[in-house]
Amino acid sequence: MTDPHDTEEPRQGFAEPYVIVSSDCHAGLPTEEYRPYLDARFHRDFDEFLGGRERRREEMTRLGIRNEAFADRWFSDNEEGLRGGWDPARRLKELDGDGVAAEVVFPDADAVDSRTAAPFGVGLGLSGDQDPELGMAGAQAHNRWLADFVSGNPERHCGVALLPVTGEVDRVVAEIHRAKESGLGALMIPSMWVDKAPYHDRRYDPVWAAAAACAMPVLTHSGAAPRDEYGDHLGIYVSEVTWWPARPLWFLLWSGVFERHPGLRFGVAESGCWWLPNLLWFMDRLYLGAHGGKKLSPFAELKRPPHEYLDRQIFVCATNTKRRELAQRYEIGVDNILWGSDFPHPEGTWPDTRGWLARTFHDIPVAETRRMLGLAAAEVFGFDTTKLAPLARRIGPTPADLGQDPDQRAVEASWARSREAGRHWLTGHDFPTLGVTP
Amino acid sequence: MTDPHDTEEPRQGFAEPYVIVSSDCHAGLPTEEYRPYLDARFHRDFDEFLGGRERRREEMTRLGIRNEAFADRWFSDNEEGLRGGWDPARRLKELDGDGVAAEVVFPDADAVDSRTAAPFGVGLGLSGDQDPELGMAGAQAHNRWLADFVSGNPERHCGVALLPVTGEVDRVVAEIHRAKESGLGALMIPSMWVDKAPYHDRRYDPVWAAAAACAMPVLTHSGAAPRDEYGDHLGIYVSEVTWWPARPLWFLLWSGVFERHPGLRFGVAESGCWWLPNLLWFMDRLYLGAHGGKKLSPFAELKRPPHEYLDRQIFVCATNTKRRELAQRYEIGVDNILWGSDFPHPEGTWPDTRGWLARTFHDIPVAETRRMLGLAAAEVFGFDTTKLAPLARRIGPTPADLGQDPDQRAVEASWARSREAGRHWLTGHDFPTLGVTP
Repeated sequence: MTDPHDTEEPRQGFAEPYVIVSSDCHAGLPTEEYRPYLDARFHRDFDEFLGGRERRREEMTRLGIRNEAFADRWFSDNEEGLRGGWDPARRLKELDGDGVAAEVVFPDADAVDSRTAAPFGVGLGLSGDQDPELGMAGAQAHNRWLADFVSGNPERHCGVALLPVTGEVDRVVAEIHRAKESGLGALMIPSMWVDKAPYHDRRYDPVWAAAAACAMPVLTHSGAAPRDEYGDHLGIYVSEVTWWPARPLWFLLWSGVFERHPGLRFGVAESGCWWLPNLLWFMDRLYLGAHGGKKLSPFAELKRPPHEYLDRQIFVCATNTKRRELAQRYEIGVDNILWGSDFPHPEGTWPDTRGWLARTFHDIPVAETRRMLGLAAAEVFGFDTTKLAPLARRIGPTPADLGQDPDQRAVEASWARSREAGRHWLTGHDFPTLGVTP
Repeated sequence: MTDPHDTEEPRQGFAEPYVIVSSDCHAGLPTEEYRPYLDARFHRDFDEFLGGRERRREEMTRLGIRNEAFADRWFSDNEEGLRGGWDPARRLKELDGDGVAAEVVFPDADAVDSRTAAPFGVGLGLSGDQDPELGMAGAQAHNRWLADFVSGNPERHCGVALLPVTGEVDRVVAEIHRAKESGLGALMIPSMWVDKAPYHDRRYDPVWAAAAACAMPVLTHSGAAPRDEYGDHLGIYVSEVTWWPARPLWFLLWSGVFERHPGLRFGVAESGCWWLPNLLWFMDRLYLGAHGGKKLSPFAELKRPPHEYLDRQIFVCATNTKRRELAQRYEIGVDNILWGSDFPHPEGTWPDTRGWLARTFHDIPVAETRRMLGLAAAEVFGFDTTKLAPLARRIGPTPADLGQDPDQRAVEASWARSREAGRHWLTGHDFPTLGVTP
């Protein structure tokens, strides 16, 4: 973890606009337009898939994920901007309007009515029990289209390839290399393996090795969940839909994947980061407690405490970070929090990202804000901030635009106690210290 | 939630010993001794079950839950005290030594080597996919023994009946009434329903109604988890074994069970309480956000925000509470945290509960300590503190024994900012404020 307070780089001036990178945006074609990207031998299956759309909509409506009245208003209010979900020129206009210089592009532009669902349900709902043939075919169709989509402005987009990782390992590894060569920069795996091998299984080692060799971060994204257990209770779904994408984190960690593959980076997208401090505290205590003078550890596959793997290899695409989460950033690690706008989803900050940033970051130190809003994401996803700087100067909000105080010494002082306690279980403090000191 | 700072009762003096109630203890017979409590027609099945002990031990050892060297030392160091797991006289001696006036009694005295496992695996591992016949037979065997066990000193023990709730509803309801009449005071249901109906299902309404009518709190307890997904990685198990018993909480809440059964009380045992503030914040925001001026809510089965159900009907048997958790007690609700010693499990505070309490509670206000160490549990489980008071005067540690400061005004002042922010999303504070003000 780079500590922005210890950096030797000259600090950027208060007047310098932010280089904003959204670590969580979405793009996808209107579903029927995926046909030319799909191998012809799957066209009949594709017709069947299209025929099931109405039934899937009804399921979403029953659970309350889809709301008819809201959908009608959302589409009429945002008709033009929503075309940015698949129209590159329109998209740049929307990103510029939000002050976003670069973005990470996940599937499923339309989260309201699923009109841009990738073929065979391999978008955000990508699941471990997907039919292997159709799953790879659907993923490749989206990946091919996405490579085209980002090719016009590669310095501004990092396309996330869909990777049905529970399938045949050789084909999965081949798809990683194909995606990399086509210009995509990251990999999304299912949150849930369902009836397939859990992610601690050694069968996946060649996959993690290939991802590391290609410098493609591996991600999960919220969406999939065991919906058949929820009846029609939306609250149950929402209460645990962020747990399932986080779950692979501790499967990878405790099975030594991060130790065996130090070049692998793993991220959890659009699942918040409020759960991370407790998890880290819990895992660190477990590991450090087991190493207190005992010779044999049940955690022999790890060579260092969990927080070291977190800071070296794990991150969260925390999307529209909440104030409560920002208060916990010294436990999470400032550099592990990657903000995102979630464009063009309604639960995100678009089209009012500038106002939203001011309401959320106004009393956060500028140096830390720069890391969370873009610089940390640029490092994880390989964006060239030198190339983005001229654009950021044109579109990026400044600290003053976010209502931040020019007296940054006072702002940093107000957080000093919280920063000093940090991860209290490692710093000799037995309580967390959260919030500003007035 | 009773606010101990607003109470009109005269405060107990600083010199008054604590009435300590452990909300999480364990008792169980050496497995083979359950035979006389088991219906004779299940004796052949019982022999088969006993024959599988070695295989089950090997499984536990493989996952690292069981450690041979640790087990040997534990049993030789604590041979006498561990007999308190099933010997009432020895048990009282151990409780007295720890300063514990009363206790809630879960199954499985032996967490190290499973020598006191209830028949057919219905102890802490009670699971929704248990064979219904054997499950009820095993539960009744334990419940019968437990009723005998607590009958000698009913004012000091609340026995928790095992309830295989996913079975036939009429039999489940009958067992609730039978357990109540036999002198037991609470009900443990499986954390996981596995392939049976999730707990939002209306089929369970007669069960919740019977539990409420009998004033028997319903509990889950950590233990069960989908172990077949973990390989031999203990860290994975430990990282999520507390999530599974917490999960029923949001299934019950969002499906309106607490609204339909206002007399039902539900608790989660030995799963910590560090996860509760985030969950509550998340659920409150979801509910309150959906009610912002809109006519229709997807949460129509609730009539009030989640925190009101929490304070009215939900609690945590937080066992050996961590300092980190105590720092969050104004978000959780002081009255919702029920301490426990976990006697006679090695991960608990026995036999050094007095020392452990001093290390953990020394700077917590005395009035709040009284609630968390006993008074809140007494209300939930129906202990008569008037009857316990003379005993507590003899065995209970005093605030001075816990190293607490006689200047309680200063102690309360040090927590004032944190208490004032409380559940910050309800009090107009946008950050949590945790920890003492120096």
